[in-house]
Amino acid sequence: MAHTIREKAKLLARVRRLKGQMEAVERALEAEAPCGEVLQLLASIRGALSGLTGEVMEDHLREHVLHADDEKQRAQAVDELADALRTYIR
Amino acid sequence: MAHTIREKAKLLARVRRLKGQMEAVERALEAEAPCGEVLQLLASIRGALSGLTGEVMEDHLREHVLHADDEKQRAQAVDELADALRTYIR
Amino acid sequence: MAHTIREKAKLLARVRRLKGQMEAVERALEAEAPCGEVLQLLASIRGALSGLTGEVMEDHLREHVLHADDEKQRAQAVDELADALRTYIR
Amino acid sequence: MAHTIREKAKLLARVRRLKGQMEAVERALEAEAPCGEVLQLLASIRGALSGLTGEVMEDHLREHVLHADDEKQRAQAVDELADALRTYIR
Repeated sequence: MAHTIREKAKLLARVRRLKGQMEAVERALEAEAPCGEVLQLLASIRGALSGLTGEVMEDHLREHVLHADDEKQRAQAVDELADALRTYIR
Repeated sequence: MAHTIREKAKLLARVRRLKGQMEAVERALEAEAPCGEVLQLLASIRGALSGLTGEVMEDHLREHVLHADDEKQRAQAVDELADALRTYIR
Repeated sequence: MAHTIREKAKLLARVRRLKGQMEAVERALEAEAPCGEVLQLLASIRGALSGLTGEVMEDHLREHVLHADDEKQRAQAVDELADALRTYIR
Repeated sequence: MAHTIREKAKLLARVRRLKGQMEAVERALEAEAPCGEVLQLLASIRGALSGLTGEVMEDHLREHVLHADDEKQRAQAVDELADALRTYIR
């Protein structure tokens, strides 16, 4: 990554929130909460995970593609993003 | 939930694996790993999360819809699943 | 399907709207419209397609699972929906 | 877009195939085909639509971001892609 300190802190905060949400699912399953409740927790995790993924992609696009040090690094950053898009969008 | 012990154990194992995968993202961000690596970790979490969601939905469909105790409970379980589908599929 | 006439008409109207949206993408590509515009058209098709899929699943759940003629047909309708969920949610 | 002729032809071929797939759904609904069949057709359309979207994004990334005429156009192309990602990934 090697993004700005501020971005790194924001991404880490999102990841920690996601871990907390996963623990809520664990507790719900252990307590045998209704399926509908478990499914809602899972849907909110999915939303948060997509938000995080979109943010990492956009940071990458701005830091490593737009503000690349040189054309070679830009081409490499484009390849990395294209790979990620191919995995994600299908 | 109140599913069989076996199913509960399987679902909990999946949730714990997901927590471990989230911790791997946390470590990758802290170590400033390449974006491409972080995006691959996030893509595998997304796959695992979808697998878990699909399994909870299918368990619900079999336990609470197909094998409902009576018609009232079946109708309620159908409503819960329809809600989850509406949230998920959009 | 064999759903009510009203549901069939609603689903067909959605499919025809989707065909129209696909033709708008075709025209945009032929006219060499900006990528951003093409991507927005594709995003709205994706939303409409998900809406249609969710509606077919919910109709199936209500007509063929909840209001099944007998337990054998109900079990079969559950299997069909479980297959569809496995394809969709991954 | 203003991409190469070859790319334009490829994208148009994909869009026309998608229109054909949508017509197959229309026929299936009219013929009251089983829900499972309709859902499979819809799942294959979703896959084809995602493939097309990913291809438009990747073409845009290579043509308008990587091979931009100048830095101003590159920044604009990055904003367009970031918008599309935000719509798509959520």
